[in-house]
Amino acid sequence: MRYREAGVDIDRASRIVRGIARLAPATWGPQVLSEIGAFGGLYAASALGRDPVLVSSIDGVGTKTRIASLARRWSGLGEDIVHHSVNDILVQGGRALFFLDYIGASRLEEAAVLEIIEGMTRACRAHDCALIGGETAEMPGTYAGGDYDVVGCIVGVVERERLLDGSRVQPGDEIWGLPSSGLHTNGYSLARRVLLEEAGLALDARPAGLESTLGEALLAPHRSYFHELWPLLLENRLHALVHLTGGGFDDNIPRVLPEGCEAEIDPTSWEIPPLFALIQRLGRVPWEEMRRVFNVGIGMIAILPAAEAPAFAGATRGARRLGTIVAGPRRVRFRD
Amino acid sequence: MRYREAGVDIDRASRIVRGIARLAPATWGPQVLSEIGAFGGLYAASALGRDPVLVSSIDGVGTKTRIASLARRWSGLGEDIVHHSVNDILVQGGRALFFLDYIGASRLEEAAVLEIIEGMTRACRAHDCALIGGETAEMPGTYAGGDYDVVGCIVGVVERERLLDGSRVQPGDEIWGLPSSGLHTNGYSLARRVLLEEAGLALDARPAGLESTLGEALLAPHRSYFHELWPLLLENRLHALVHLTGGGFDDNIPRVLPEGCEAEIDPTSWEIPPLFALIQRLGRVPWEEMRRVFNVGIGMIAILPAAEAPAFAGATRGARRLGTIVAGPRRVRFRD
Repeated sequence: MRYREAGVDIDRASRIVRGIARLAPATWGPQVLSEIGAFGGLYAASALGRDPVLVSSIDGVGTKTRIASLARRWSGLGEDIVHHSVNDILVQGGRALFFLDYIGASRLEEAAVLEIIEGMTRACRAHDCALIGGETAEMPGTYAGGDYDVVGCIVGVVERERLLDGSRVQPGDEIWGLPSSGLHTNGYSLARRVLLEEAGLALDARPAGLESTLGEALLAPHRSYFHELWPLLLENRLHALVHLTGGGFDDNIPRVLPEGCEAEIDPTSWEIPPLFALIQRLGRVPWEEMRRVFNVGIGMIAILPAAEAPAFAGATRGARRLGTIVAGPRRVRFRD
Repeated sequence: MRYREAGVDIDRASRIVRGIARLAPATWGPQVLSEIGAFGGLYAASALGRDPVLVSSIDGVGTKTRIASLARRWSGLGEDIVHHSVNDILVQGGRALFFLDYIGASRLEEAAVLEIIEGMTRACRAHDCALIGGETAEMPGTYAGGDYDVVGCIVGVVERERLLDGSRVQPGDEIWGLPSSGLHTNGYSLARRVLLEEAGLALDARPAGLESTLGEALLAPHRSYFHELWPLLLENRLHALVHLTGGGFDDNIPRVLPEGCEAEIDPTSWEIPPLFALIQRLGRVPWEEMRRVFNVGIGMIAILPAAEAPAFAGATRGARRLGTIVAGPRRVRFRD
């Protein structure tokens, strides 16, 4: 009996590592001191700022991997996890330093893994983020069929006095939203169930209203809001940012609300994109459930003083005013 | 249709997050500025040292999770991933700062997840490491049956002048090994195949030679070598450390060998523990395959000048001299 007969191919894993070693160095600046193949990634931290705070996050892309496997198009998953992570630390005022990835599967397919990594390196380069570590795990029988799990851990930095924690949010502040590019990385289990299983749609179907095939719409990469929002953060124009991920409006917005601040949102203030409307209609999903599971068209929320609204709208793409912070309990309320 | 009917229970996930929020703060020192529920973990980095280098690693516990699910004993998995990670950065001279975890499953069982997290917090506290972030992902249908994937990302620090990279390794240095506590976190797919599937052993069996049940032996947590080795690193006594993980002797030792240095190892210099002997015998696994897949009893290797050998043996438990660095190609050679 050899390891390969038990479903783990160390030689294939070595080929994958060599492929990664060709891709990742393109993301490295002079701070990266390690090479691929070292036990850990090394990042010089002597010049992070005056009073630096490391801000870190770990997350996965969920069952979006299953859509990618069905469509045999994986490269977007790499962008997904990097952009998701970049947004997650951006909302606390952080910019990326480095990233580590984990890809698990019952059987690692070389082309799929390298396509994912290629997407990651592209997204990392666009955010000045070094891909300095990773693990590919072949776990026979743990994952169903050809499924993958794609996980990433990001470490960034924020100057302590620039930490964004919502403490400056106050009644009278305006709530603005930026469009999502699709489902991002949340709600895929419900979307798959409704669209593919119950309604029986194929990924190459073109349901009315969609500008692409269903597969393309479902695989649209998670949008990064870094380049639009970073200059506004440097100019101290925002009171809070909210990344609309799992838990949607109801669970994410209260994370940045101080006591006594209620987020009043007008649900007619933005147009629900066709993909979400399709899921809602075909699955007869109640709207309050839609807003808890999906971003329903808004991927990032900014809370800011009214005087900053023109600067915000001018610096971003597709900004919509969604509502207002009012005095009230620490929660979200949708106006009738 | 609601999310729960598609297999994702946000309310159960919220209960799990509340459970984690009760456990994780016990690992926090004054550097931790965030709370559980924030988008990212915050760690103050203004006092990391004179010329600090961040050293990071991401990894999983592999299909050891399957043994844990069969035995319904998960707490060791938390120790496993933390200790594995601590060892991975220790071999570059690093000590832990903070840790983020990811737990994926088709269905997250509250008791299992909290048992894993409880083990993580215990291991984090023992290593002055803050558990500051994590994600639990319920991915219906992606994972087979009751299986889990347990992943962790560690970030530590090392003073640049104390970075351990093997460059000081030279012919004449001695190679020493420290015992493993079991399979640690590698080779479980082969072990399961041989012991449980082919030989049909039960987890509560007590094969001759084993001092515990098979299940207990397979679930023995990964040993941390931090507390034994850290004082030796501070005193600058070691030329290199090698964490024996996937790829075993052959793939891991060369990572720290400079050009012109060969690691000559006497395979009779340590006793193969009964669990490895059992796998080898029942699976008729060739020894060179055993040494590539498993740690076969040695979890950590130190390369040091002969003059430091007494200090090393005195500071550690169960140290064995395994061999010598000789002039030769950059590889491992087992003496006949």
